[in-house]
Amino acid sequence: MAALEYYFEDFAVGDTFDLGEYTFSADEIVAFAKQFDPQPFHLDEAGGKASHFGGLVASGWHTCSIMMRLNVVQMVSRSASMGSPGVEEIRWLKPVRPGDTLNVTSTTLAVRASQSKPDRGTVTQLWTATNQHGEEVCRFKGTGMYRRRSAG
Amino acid sequence: MAALEYYFEDFAVGDTFDLGEYTFSADEIVAFAKQFDPQPFHLDEAGGKASHFGGLVASGWHTCSIMMRLNVVQMVSRSASMGSPGVEEIRWLKPVRPGDTLNVTSTTLAVRASQSKPDRGTVTQLWTATNQHGEEVCRFKGTGMYRRRSAG
Repeated sequence: MAALEYYFEDFAVGDTFDLGEYTFSADEIVAFAKQFDPQPFHLDEAGGKASHFGGLVASGWHTCSIMMRLNVVQMVSRSASMGSPGVEEIRWLKPVRPGDTLNVTSTTLAVRASQSKPDRGTVTQLWTATNQHGEEVCRFKGTGMYRRRSAG
Repeated sequence: MAALEYYFEDFAVGDTFDLGEYTFSADEIVAFAKQFDPQPFHLDEAGGKASHFGGLVASGWHTCSIMMRLNVVQMVSRSASMGSPGVEEIRWLKPVRPGDTLNVTSTTLAVRASQSKPDRGTVTQLWTATNQHGEEVCRFKGTGMYRRRSAG
């Protein structure tokens, strides 16, 4: 197993991470919707056309889950992550449509050593997803717990 | 198509909805994690045992997505939903493990007619998921847009 690059001590306010990009296919949008969010505008093009969206759009939970995937693959998997207590202020700003490519970045907003548990601390970051037209489509703030480097 | 039961005018502060229950299987927890949250404690029992969770646990995004599923099947599908601008204060309070059954409810916290668009309004609700031991495992506040009955 490779040595971990990011322990609690390695996060600093203002750091940004490029988490890569992901292109949504119609098949994936529909598959997610069937399992988790079976609203007509997420299930097929006809349902989307009949709605105010004007076409098939991804579930907002699908968008967030893809942002999480990129975060885990690019960042969390290289870190001493201990999971997350929660997320603030999810905003679904624009629809995500089949063929859209989202670029995802995170910015560190706050780092805080745990008062009660000396082996860890929390890191609050802002995640944003921007589509191929430069439009921000989704953002949220999440807090992660990370082990201290000194705790091994 | 059946007539819709819930337009904007039909929501009232304090109303609660029983959205039913869902039992998480290990296979589903792992399948979600492979696609969206490939952290060791979500991917297999061994990774979970090696972590502070002590066993396989569901991704928090999986828990939220199942809460959304129950909400759509039981409530949104019977409503004049126009989607959601966002979610506040997701809290992952306890791990969700294979075999856990979550009961999900929603409570209406606020209703607000749109100032700019007379055909719709927003409804803010608190969703909570409680496991078979009576422990609250996840909660979040979400806002939905709904067409007015008078707008058809």
